[in-house]
Amino acid sequence: MKTYLDCLPCMMNQALRAGRIATNNDAKIKQVLDEVGAMIKDIPMYHTPVQSGALVYQKIRDITGVIDPYKDIKKNSIKEALSLYPTLIKLMKKSDNKLLTAIRIAITGNIIDFGMDKQYDLAKELDIVIKQDFAIFDFKAFVNKLSQAKSVLYIGDNAGESVFDKILIEALGKPVTYVVRGIPIINDVTMEDAIDSGIGKIAEIISSGSPAPGTILELCNDDFVHLFNNADMVISKGQGNYEGLSNVNRTVFFLLKAKCEIIANDLEVNENDIILKGINK
Amino acid sequence: MKTYLDCLPCMMNQALRAGRIATNNDAKIKQVLDEVGAMIKDIPMYHTPVQSGALVYQKIRDITGVIDPYKDIKKNSIKEALSLYPTLIKLMKKSDNKLLTAIRIAITGNIIDFGMDKQYDLAKELDIVIKQDFAIFDFKAFVNKLSQAKSVLYIGDNAGESVFDKILIEALGKPVTYVVRGIPIINDVTMEDAIDSGIGKIAEIISSGSPAPGTILELCNDDFVHLFNNADMVISKGQGNYEGLSNVNRTVFFLLKAKCEIIANDLEVNENDIILKGINK
Repeated sequence: MKTYLDCLPCMMNQALRAGRIATNNDAKIKQVLDEVGAMIKDIPMYHTPVQSGALVYQKIRDITGVIDPYKDIKKNSIKEALSLYPTLIKLMKKSDNKLLTAIRIAITGNIIDFGMDKQYDLAKELDIVIKQDFAIFDFKAFVNKLSQAKSVLYIGDNAGESVFDKILIEALGKPVTYVVRGIPIINDVTMEDAIDSGIGKIAEIISSGSPAPGTILELCNDDFVHLFNNADMVISKGQGNYEGLSNVNRTVFFLLKAKCEIIANDLEVNENDIILKGINK
Repeated sequence: MKTYLDCLPCMMNQALRAGRIATNNDAKIKQVLDEVGAMIKDIPMYHTPVQSGALVYQKIRDITGVIDPYKDIKKNSIKEALSLYPTLIKLMKKSDNKLLTAIRIAITGNIIDFGMDKQYDLAKELDIVIKQDFAIFDFKAFVNKLSQAKSVLYIGDNAGESVFDKILIEALGKPVTYVVRGIPIINDVTMEDAIDSGIGKIAEIISSGSPAPGTILELCNDDFVHLFNNADMVISKGQGNYEGLSNVNRTVFFLLKAKCEIIANDLEVNENDIILKGINK
């Protein structure tokens, strides 16, 4: 997905929010805003928003010296999600369509996103998403591809959401490789977060090497790119991964909630719609 | 009022909104965002937000060549407000406390603000504000000052709101000088807008010379500054005028709705509260 004009002020909003999480020093936050503001003119609109997002969070690390501002937030998200896990697994297992319910549960977890300026309530979100109509629903193609796949490459998005992903990984019934970011960025899931979420018990966890809050193939490590290109089936969670991968040439199934108007427009859906979209399927 | 960190991303949001009203040319809007972004580092935090706001809208004029992007919007706001005028005047005249009702009506008009990212519904807003408790209510001091004043200097804010101001001007029962901006900026009331609103029939209209979406004395013309310093009573409408005048050394009565969180915090009230605040009273 390209950068839209609306993404530019949004970067300043994100810089302020994340700057405040990293430090209480207003002078340093002002410096973050100064430098992100000055950077806007160098952002090519053909870049994906997460590519520029990576630079925003790099500025925050450089100026504040805080490498992982969302560390505690992520730990709390995982803890909260783990407390829901017994409910989630029961919900999936008693369902008539376990796979579809697991997909809905995985999408529910996508609300745990501190890159957005939104509050969330996980239990309420689950009630909504479990019944909500999909705005894009390529479920048949998903089932078909899954039935042919020997294994699945599952690209994670946020910490805490990772616990919800575990339900879907269990429902897939195939060997899964779960992909995390290369460095801590916003509240995106890292190796440590995935392990804390219990993913290590049911899937192999690898790092894409991405330093961005999404998957940008040019910034990923060679091992991941090779796996991505050759995987039988790729599932991509969330907005950041959609932004980075929406124009690739292979089949990818995107599971997300369209949490901002710009991504909703790009997908030709409404804000807050839920999506199961296959490309090149 | 000083500039807060939150005002800086807000300037980018305003640049995008106003850029889109001025032109459909995305490259020009990108240039506006580039230049406003680059400007952030030169904004001293002791400046008032409207002082920097003036520079944002100057950039839009310079880059798009459009001097008055909000011209049609202002004409429509005035037309809509004039259609409500008979209802408003009746409401004021049948009220037990005409002055207070007129103040409430004048504050209702303050919702017509295209500098904000909010939709509004005038009739609904009137229903709310006519009953809403004031968060700051210096009505006694207001009445006292008014009873001693031979005349009143009334600093207007937005076009359309000016029609609501007319009700209060009538209720004041004193000779009024109504102050408009020096140039078209956002949807702020200019000489032409004040005349179209019917203010000319009941008050003298003068320009403060301010090129900002608020009153910054250093940027106003000498005649206005002299009048401001020597007026028996000054009434200031809206956020922009509050931002510019909140630290002056004379008595001023501010009438406004706190439409953004930052101004609400500065006033120590909640967002959407209504205010009748006297300073140095």
